[in-house]
Amino acid sequence: MINETTMQQELERMGAAAVRASRKLAVMSADAKADCLRRMADALIADTAAIIAANAADMERARSNGLSDAMLDRLRLDDARVAGMADGLRQVAGQSDPVGRVLSHTVRPNGLAIDKVTVPLGVVAIIYESRPNVTSDAAGICLKAGNAVILRGGSEAFDSNRTIAASLNRAAMACGIPDGAVQLIPWTDHAAVSLMLKLDRYIDLVIPRGGERLIRTVMRESTIPVLKHYKGVCHIFVDHQCDIANAVAIAENAKCQRPGTCNAMETLLIDRRIAAAFIPPFLARMQERGVELRGCPEFLAFAPGAKAAVEQDYYAEYLSLILTVRIVSGVEEAVDHINTYGSRHSEAIISSDQADIDYFFANVDSSTVYANASTRFTDGGEFGLGAEIGISTDKLHARGPMGADELTSTKFIVRGNGQIRQ
Amino acid sequence: MINETTMQQELERMGAAAVRASRKLAVMSADAKADCLRRMADALIADTAAIIAANAADMERARSNGLSDAMLDRLRLDDARVAGMADGLRQVAGQSDPVGRVLSHTVRPNGLAIDKVTVPLGVVAIIYESRPNVTSDAAGICLKAGNAVILRGGSEAFDSNRTIAASLNRAAMACGIPDGAVQLIPWTDHAAVSLMLKLDRYIDLVIPRGGERLIRTVMRESTIPVLKHYKGVCHIFVDHQCDIANAVAIAENAKCQRPGTCNAMETLLIDRRIAAAFIPPFLARMQERGVELRGCPEFLAFAPGAKAAVEQDYYAEYLSLILTVRIVSGVEEAVDHINTYGSRHSEAIISSDQADIDYFFANVDSSTVYANASTRFTDGGEFGLGAEIGISTDKLHARGPMGADELTSTKFIVRGNGQIRQ
Repeated sequence: MINETTMQQELERMGAAAVRASRKLAVMSADAKADCLRRMADALIADTAAIIAANAADMERARSNGLSDAMLDRLRLDDARVAGMADGLRQVAGQSDPVGRVLSHTVRPNGLAIDKVTVPLGVVAIIYESRPNVTSDAAGICLKAGNAVILRGGSEAFDSNRTIAASLNRAAMACGIPDGAVQLIPWTDHAAVSLMLKLDRYIDLVIPRGGERLIRTVMRESTIPVLKHYKGVCHIFVDHQCDIANAVAIAENAKCQRPGTCNAMETLLIDRRIAAAFIPPFLARMQERGVELRGCPEFLAFAPGAKAAVEQDYYAEYLSLILTVRIVSGVEEAVDHINTYGSRHSEAIISSDQADIDYFFANVDSSTVYANASTRFTDGGEFGLGAEIGISTDKLHARGPMGADELTSTKFIVRGNGQIRQ
Repeated sequence: MINETTMQQELERMGAAAVRASRKLAVMSADAKADCLRRMADALIADTAAIIAANAADMERARSNGLSDAMLDRLRLDDARVAGMADGLRQVAGQSDPVGRVLSHTVRPNGLAIDKVTVPLGVVAIIYESRPNVTSDAAGICLKAGNAVILRGGSEAFDSNRTIAASLNRAAMACGIPDGAVQLIPWTDHAAVSLMLKLDRYIDLVIPRGGERLIRTVMRESTIPVLKHYKGVCHIFVDHQCDIANAVAIAENAKCQRPGTCNAMETLLIDRRIAAAFIPPFLARMQERGVELRGCPEFLAFAPGAKAAVEQDYYAEYLSLILTVRIVSGVEEAVDHINTYGSRHSEAIISSDQADIDYFFANVDSSTVYANASTRFTDGGEFGLGAEIGISTDKLHARGPMGADELTSTKFIVRGNGQIRQ
């Protein structure tokens, strides 16, 4: 076990190296950055054998630690998956450059010309768990926005992550970027994360990706700004007036199409006036799909087979085929429920009443609000943002799906000809 | 002394009240909010006698605590100053509404129409020190952006702040906003701030305005996102080729026009090739204005009367008529100096060499970079942003002068007609 002083020194060294690399990245042209991303893709292909060998060591350790088959499958790399990572980098290379966009241009009465332009953030730290492809995905999107990246991956994938990060960093160095564009924290102890979270001199942003406990720990320990995604307790409200077949299909899709995702529905709210018409076809579909229902007393009268929901169910992110159902008096009560129990992620109203849709859009306090569509669309790719670094449930800086644009800051550039302030 | 449990309960009650008020503010039209701000201005005028009486109590306490005349003058309110606060609110009322702007509109291949629109943040907490006019200025700009505000003012101005906040909150209630749009924390203990900084369930943003120590304390204690302004160590670089009379005038303005402000110059960097021509007229001007100079060894050879600068001077925010001067080899060394010792606030190059200007703009990592103008222009009013809530030296969410626009978040509004994800 390494001592904390040594760890601290090494982390400071990594922070300073990341800043040096970021200075170069910040002034590279869009073409030079895209070229660098393509070279990084080539490097992954060239290093495939080494990456798969490192991954075999991770898999061996994971098996002896008794990881589940599902976890082992997430961890496993093969030629096709490495090629997929390289393809991801090439796609990011082809996207438009988020740096140098002029957001506003003003000429003041005194002649000062003021441009507000997008610039890289600088150094971004990403904390993530199992899947090793996140190493190259996260590095690619950070570099696209001109940022250096410090990665802290899960211990299961340590050897894979280290080999991938080293390959990417060597490719960046071959493009003239100082050593430090892509770095992986070389220890799996929590102490290393705690120390990193105080490096506000070097790191501009921390993005934790993982469970709620990890995220709360990061929030408590970090002196660096954090962008986070607590959880996705997403709601669908079936309004008093709507196309019932549509409502059933959307509820099914939002719950069942991929229940383990953050944008899957966890609670369904039903307007009392449509309950008798909506619930029978809805129940039949849920039964077909094997969904466990937990309902309020009024819903249980329609669905005797369902369990009684308790208060805790209204806060629950099940991430599985379980659904809470509650009958409400109308859009106002639905919105109150969402703002009380929700996680500010994604919510939908299924309705043909425009006034109710407008009320829902204006009053629901979430990153994304839908009318007559599934919550499952909350995703950078589905929104056309290109590669996604996560979905923010915060309100500052970025809210909802985050692409490379959200990894930039701004700078005011002011051109004068001798102006002084009176 | 009140116990912490009672304080905690009362703060939770205030937080919940602020959220209720913010829900109403979030759906008010631009006209309704502007009308409310005008009624708040009227309320201050109507309550002038009570405000001045409360201020007299603060002044009495401040005198017996031995506050300096300058501090007493900052604290003092009279008819004209209350009228000035009301005028400030009326000006904010007249500005354009930052809420409901459509930042992007996309129609996806599946027919989903996605709008990204600006929405209020929700509840904003402001921590500030002496001057009581900040109470109404901060409340006005927060309400303009549809936010409720929780204020924590300095203990010197406690009675004034309480009376102003109560007047504003009553006016908001008369406009149909639930009790809680404008609240002042009713204790001056630091314990109340510590407890408030954990209320992330209710408060969306904290803005501390004050000295570096206050800001570092807030950063350490807060689980709520913070926008901050550490300090302004602003630089001017006199390049090898420039209009020397301009350079002298800009340096004088940036140092002397109001040395106590965050955008005043603290360090002057001079290109070696222009030192012999620039320094004599510059020295004469500094002598006229009574500026104390602290220079590098090379500068001291030109200015035998100056003191020798030590390393600490390069980090110093003097806020007075003291200036550090360093001679450098050119724009690259100037930029390295700024990125090493600066505070990322505002920096200027005085130059007629376009390549050097471009290099300076691209490589200086600060909120605002100038060519051939004084750093003193970094200000919401001077930038045409309307009322200002502060100047951010952060890179996330807001950078540089912050107006009502920076007190908003965004929401994705997605309109479908039955779309489900495949």
